Amino acid sequence: MCFTHLVRTGELFDLLRDGRPWTRAQLADATGLARSTIAARIDTLIRLGLVAPYGGARSTGGRPPALFALNPTAKLVVGVDIGATHARAALTDLNGSILAEADAQLKVADGPDRVLTWVVDTVRELVTSSNRPLADLAAIGIGLPGPVEHSTGRPINPPIMPGWDRYDVPGHLQQAYALPVLVDNDVNIMALGERRAHLRDVDDLVLIKVATGIGAGIVSGGVLQRGAQGTAGDLGHVRVPGADDVLCRCGNTGCLEAVAAGPALAAAVRAQGEDAETGGDVVELVRGGSLVAMSVVRQAGRDIGEVVATLTNLINPSVVVIGGQLAGAGEHLLAGIRESVYQRSLPLATEHLRIVTSRAGREAAVLGASALAIEHVLSPEAVEAASEALPAS
Amino acid sequence: MCFTHLVRTGELFDLLRDGRPWTRAQLADATGLARSTIAARIDTLIRLGLVAPYGGARSTGGRPPALFALNPTAKLVVGVDIGATHARAALTDLNGSILAEADAQLKVADGPDRVLTWVVDTVRELVTSSNRPLADLAAIGIGLPGPVEHSTGRPINPPIMPGWDRYDVPGHLQQAYALPVLVDNDVNIMALGERRAHLRDVDDLVLIKVATGIGAGIVSGGVLQRGAQGTAGDLGHVRVPGADDVLCRCGNTGCLEAVAAGPALAAAVRAQGEDAETGGDVVELVRGGSLVAMSVVRQAGRDIGEVVATLTNLINPSVVVIGGQLAGAGEHLLAGIRESVYQRSLPLATEHLRIVTSRAGREAAVLGASALAIEHVLSPEAVEAASEALPAS
Repeated sequence: MCFTHLVRTGELFDLLRDGRPWTRAQLADATGLARSTIAARIDTLIRLGLVAPYGGARSTGGRPPALFALNPTAKLVVGVDIGATHARAALTDLNGSILAEADAQLKVADGPDRVLTWVVDTVRELVTSSNRPLADLAAIGIGLPGPVEHSTGRPINPPIMPGWDRYDVPGHLQQAYALPVLVDNDVNIMALGERRAHLRDVDDLVLIKVATGIGAGIVSGGVLQRGAQGTAGDLGHVRVPGADDVLCRCGNTGCLEAVAAGPALAAAVRAQGEDAETGGDVVELVRGGSLVAMSVVRQAGRDIGEVVATLTNLINPSVVVIGGQLAGAGEHLLAGIRESVYQRSLPLATEHLRIVTSRAGREAAVLGASALAIEHVLSPEAVEAASEALPAS
Repeated sequence: MCFTHLVRTGELFDLLRDGRPWTRAQLADATGLARSTIAARIDTLIRLGLVAPYGGARSTGGRPPALFALNPTAKLVVGVDIGATHARAALTDLNGSILAEADAQLKVADGPDRVLTWVVDTVRELVTSSNRPLADLAAIGIGLPGPVEHSTGRPINPPIMPGWDRYDVPGHLQQAYALPVLVDNDVNIMALGERRAHLRDVDDLVLIKVATGIGAGIVSGGVLQRGAQGTAGDLGHVRVPGADDVLCRCGNTGCLEAVAAGPALAAAVRAQGEDAETGGDVVELVRGGSLVAMSVVRQAGRDIGEVVATLTNLINPSVVVIGGQLAGAGEHLLAGIRESVYQRSLPLATEHLRIVTSRAGREAAVLGASALAIEHVLSPEAVEAASEALPAS
């Protein structure tokens, strides 16, 4: 029996999206497709602008075989990070390389109309200031500082976002741009951004944001894990030993956030006679050599480490990344975390575990929002839909 | 441009494996394949024995359209559960329906030679006693009571399995049967078995086994999560509040297992003057109405609940299933667990959370080992490989 292996254009593109150049023969071998079919599919992808001839073919004697590769500059996405009191947006290509950025002092509590108007205007400014047509824009990714129902892009009971509950964020932006809009919470996009920028080969990682609150984005088996209601990664309200008399803003006692987030550290430093209003002030004191601040940060590390130890036993990541404002305290925080983790977790789970501070830093979130958008644009389903929409040639 | 959508045989089969009957026209609509291509693919799947004509087509006037569906009785798998002191095996079809079972009092500590000889013999007996040829056997799934490197099927430093460290379990069985052999740890296969038997639509669930030890199998986004080193789900050595003076067999103090597993409960019951050697004895006392045993079990539930609360915040499952020997204490254990979880977890994460005892019970493990094997047999890759190996027709 003659048995022909056949793949869709989107699935062929799946091979090309790793960025390496391929010859038609290699693509035919990898897919089982006939050369003529490969040629037609490549033609479609070139017309979509997603694939381009690649210039780097080395001659093997005679005419070198034509190479094709992902054309990462063909399309653009914008990644947006909305924080409690700031907003940031980055225009990137399909490699996630930043082409232009914008910042604003913007309060999420001012409500969706004001904030999303800034997003609409900023997206246009970023694209036009880069001398690219708006038609090159393929998708928008956006991170919000609260729980988000990812499938609909709507915030769900976000505590610090009055006016946003179940607001149709994609619908609002799509009045200005007829494009896919992907929405997620801030720690999830930070995890995606850190992975895309610095940990591409790591399939099991957790990014913990330590700032005014504490939360985590969890990637397991290469997939961002959101959980049944999208609340996975809520580290801040896990109970830690020895904190049972500390009241948390959630109404419970003994939560990690109540003893190890920025406000708690500032209070602990003040209680020992030094001057600090915020977690940022504590980081400054640590950098200035304050022993009080160092010891407070180290204890916060131990408390965070108790929860990281539990998380290591439950999820078994290979990398734990500490991000957010308090990551600025660097080794003092990490030392406390490691102390608890190596004491509490099983040897097999910690044998290859790395605990590090974020390298993407302030840009983790916009890079992650961009990654969310790129992931969508390059998905076999989206490529398939785009190829169907092409006019007949 | 004429753009034909094309899929491989394995991917076509992916539509059929839900068990519902399909017409050729429905398959053509769902895949975009030409009717003639569908006919050829269906023919291949019928020759493989995986798909069969379906008899239930309702007439819509005139000749009813031919229907095709997964043929779940065509192939067999064996699911094996090796416990500390017992072994069980079940022969199932591709629906996971049990056709025959076998039990043995067998110590895993007797080593791989003795245990796997039993497996080899039992597999043959189960198939032949069911009057089926060994050629119908498609794969073997096996669960072991310790950490397993799933990709190679080798146990890694298993504490109660002398002689098994890095032993090539698939290699041993493949000397007798030239078939795929899938190996995993006991709690992972229990989670798969419970899901397959009773929670097929649940994508985010955790099964917690409470017996001589405590461990969990975690399914997130419909995928079993093993973690970077395969140690995910290690609940037993998470620290619980108020147990810092209790020494665990792992050498640490305050582990959940040291206060809430079978031996700890038996000791607590004895300390209050009742007679119990094992967790099983405690369950019997609870069933007999012992107030001492009930109160000990309820406290164990609260301790387990502390860790389930953390797990709920971190992973956000929609169902937590309690299995293993102590699940026999039923509502007394669940009440304690729920007490801690509803007190400690955030409302959004517990709004739809169900905490239940295992319905699959003793059969969860063999059903899960069978599910592991079925999952492999029905994977697009395995079907594709089998169709390539068919002789030309």
